[in-house]
Amino acid sequence: MARDWIHWGDNSTEGLPIDEMMIGQIRTRSSDSYVTDSSSSATAYSCGIKTYNGGVAVNDDQEPCGTVLEAAKLKGFMTGLIVTSRITHATPASYIAHIYDRDKEANIALQEIGYAHPLGRTVDILMGGGKCFFTPQGTASSCRKDNIDALAIARTLGYTVFEDRATFDKSLKLPYLGLFTQDHMSFEIDRDPKKEPSLTEMAIKGLNDLYKATKESKEGFFVMVEASRIDHAGHGNDPTAHLHDILEYNRAMNAMRKWIDEHDDSPTVLISTADHECGGLTLGYELDGAPEYWFAPQYFAGSKNSTEKLARAWRDATTTDLARYVRENIFKPYGVMSPTNDEVSRAIGLKNSTSGFGVFLGQVLSERLGVHWASLGHSAVDVTLYGYGVNHEDFAGQHDNTEVAEFVAKQLDLKLDPITEKLRKNTSWIKDNVKPQPGEAPKLKGRDVAMHHH
Amino acid sequence: MARDWIHWGDNSTEGLPIDEMMIGQIRTRSSDSYVTDSSSSATAYSCGIKTYNGGVAVNDDQEPCGTVLEAAKLKGFMTGLIVTSRITHATPASYIAHIYDRDKEANIALQEIGYAHPLGRTVDILMGGGKCFFTPQGTASSCRKDNIDALAIARTLGYTVFEDRATFDKSLKLPYLGLFTQDHMSFEIDRDPKKEPSLTEMAIKGLNDLYKATKESKEGFFVMVEASRIDHAGHGNDPTAHLHDILEYNRAMNAMRKWIDEHDDSPTVLISTADHECGGLTLGYELDGAPEYWFAPQYFAGSKNSTEKLARAWRDATTTDLARYVRENIFKPYGVMSPTNDEVSRAIGLKNSTSGFGVFLGQVLSERLGVHWASLGHSAVDVTLYGYGVNHEDFAGQHDNTEVAEFVAKQLDLKLDPITEKLRKNTSWIKDNVKPQPGEAPKLKGRDVAMHHH
Repeated sequence: MARDWIHWGDNSTEGLPIDEMMIGQIRTRSSDSYVTDSSSSATAYSCGIKTYNGGVAVNDDQEPCGTVLEAAKLKGFMTGLIVTSRITHATPASYIAHIYDRDKEANIALQEIGYAHPLGRTVDILMGGGKCFFTPQGTASSCRKDNIDALAIARTLGYTVFEDRATFDKSLKLPYLGLFTQDHMSFEIDRDPKKEPSLTEMAIKGLNDLYKATKESKEGFFVMVEASRIDHAGHGNDPTAHLHDILEYNRAMNAMRKWIDEHDDSPTVLISTADHECGGLTLGYELDGAPEYWFAPQYFAGSKNSTEKLARAWRDATTTDLARYVRENIFKPYGVMSPTNDEVSRAIGLKNSTSGFGVFLGQVLSERLGVHWASLGHSAVDVTLYGYGVNHEDFAGQHDNTEVAEFVAKQLDLKLDPITEKLRKNTSWIKDNVKPQPGEAPKLKGRDVAMHHH
Repeated sequence: MARDWIHWGDNSTEGLPIDEMMIGQIRTRSSDSYVTDSSSSATAYSCGIKTYNGGVAVNDDQEPCGTVLEAAKLKGFMTGLIVTSRITHATPASYIAHIYDRDKEANIALQEIGYAHPLGRTVDILMGGGKCFFTPQGTASSCRKDNIDALAIARTLGYTVFEDRATFDKSLKLPYLGLFTQDHMSFEIDRDPKKEPSLTEMAIKGLNDLYKATKESKEGFFVMVEASRIDHAGHGNDPTAHLHDILEYNRAMNAMRKWIDEHDDSPTVLISTADHECGGLTLGYELDGAPEYWFAPQYFAGSKNSTEKLARAWRDATTTDLARYVRENIFKPYGVMSPTNDEVSRAIGLKNSTSGFGVFLGQVLSERLGVHWASLGHSAVDVTLYGYGVNHEDFAGQHDNTEVAEFVAKQLDLKLDPITEKLRKNTSWIKDNVKPQPGEAPKLKGRDVAMHHH
């Protein structure tokens, strides 16, 4: 979809930057579902094991598994996690925290900074959103249900903590923790560059700082960079947010490729894939019989905000002329220049349902674009694998998602089993942090009602 | 979907045979649409050029372009086209016939056997369905509007012509033309092996015969094998027909891979891809919020016929108890063991609409499976590229569909331009066969209303 949008603009037929790095495909099913969630797929990427949907770097028995990031750090590498979601979200969490349920983000925050973690601090750069899980209850926007000030703890553990673009632009000492938003960072289309850096800027800053920090070292660095919000745009069936986060992902990939080319004194391999598809996005409707189809990327031209942002604006709007307001201030900035009267009526009916209105607005544009969403959730299709740099060609072809961790471990000469053993020895930590606490639902494997019963 | 069905059966997490041969991706857009049709994509594969949807081995100006099959034959290779569609359908046609409109299958039949073709006969093996375009009007099931007996002409041109399984099983002299059905061959799930060979059987017979015929030659052979009916199952939104034709495609790919391994005296490269996706098939619905999903391949277990076959049986059924009949004889063999009363009512309402009922029946099973179809037509997504054998690794990565012809030409050391020139010199042939005839609509480039106007 993003490529076709570019082609509409410049009449080219070339690929995107990622197309030039395409090397294979990844199978994503989890241990208890053909359709994986983010934490189980990220656990395959970090630990090299299949686990159940919802498990964060734990196996089906809810025992912790050592990750490539932990193994790299213990071997002397420097490490980083750079995302546009909350830093406590499933994907980054699965590289550094171990817990039976991805929703326990207050605990994940503490593990990430090395506080509630038996290996101590293992990550040198943490950047993303999600400040709300680091501030004690009662403070503005806090998501915690306790009085723990995780930012204060992070400072005690040596982190430079910052929350603003101005500090991001400065030269910073490792380790650092940059949290730019309370919740997820903005979709690229909505981002205010004065407040939040782009994914590309964060990735390149991370690479530069990790490179400098390991220049004199025999070991190098490991960093996981996630264009997290592509998934959220899929969940919201928002083609505009999706398009612009994909384009930013392409800019980040292109910048990292260039960075690798410019740093041949630090031989680096870049591997990129998705944890899963989201939304069941397909391109094109048939028009009264083949071979004529409707797929019109030009309808993106006037679309300048995400449905998430516009749905909030619509909910908060106070006006006596709702129809006029929604036409001018909601449909129009989303690129829907001439909504039908029926669409305007439905918008008015959904004014107080931000998620319902968001999906509706996405659908209105999707119909004009000729794109189709099958689901508000993930799908079971394979995801594409990209690679660049040292030895990336060794990972060409189709792989199970667990092989991603194996490839990374091989490149960095890491052993994950000793890390797993070390983690599992700490039984009191496991009882208090990894396993369900008294009164909590177990959330064990097998929740997917559709799995094999034959 | 096919892999997950296998996984449900054996609890494995391994790939399918094709997964082991996955090497890249193909971009498919045509010259006048982001969503290609089969003839324009096949023309990219055969001639290495972009053309408009509907054009068969012609450019945007409806001038013929030389194909890899024609170039191979003229260089001394032996050639074959083996498909499960009508042999006159867009994909095989685009390797050997040149015409402005894919629907002109009566003319395509004549070009394919080398009759209405300036290069004469260039294909040594033709197998598939589509006999109706080879028999004169007035004979049973004929699709021709003239008195031409193309089978008699084929015999005159040297072809062994056969229509039955028994002859297929014999040793046959090249060239031969095997047409097993009037229309397309059966979906694999419906196929009667006493009447029609499988795709795998046809492919291996073709390889063996081309191998024998070129054993003493300095040149080898070129053959295009198409699992044609996967696309038709997509157009019909029939998950069962789709699954079983994909499984048969896997068997054929596996058999060809094995054949290559066993014939290292005839170094062979196998490249396989689709001309386009069809149906916008995605896997999985969300259940009351992630991370729980519904995707249940076990619902395939009782599904034993295509919707095409069952829709015809339902149309032809004569019974006084329609509800009972449709439950027992239509829903049940499709694997829908307990249709709702509403589903039974709708089936009765659609009794005389075979295509409408077919799509409805596919939808009933798709909902139980948790699979989703976005369209009754093609989509613009990239298709997967598979490769095996000599130099296949040179074609790894993502490519535009025109590069498929370039790769084949390079492997066989073919030049397409001289073929194109030779074809274009024959102006009377072009006037009478390639271009629209007096009174016919021009069907020129630009029919896709959604293309760029900016």
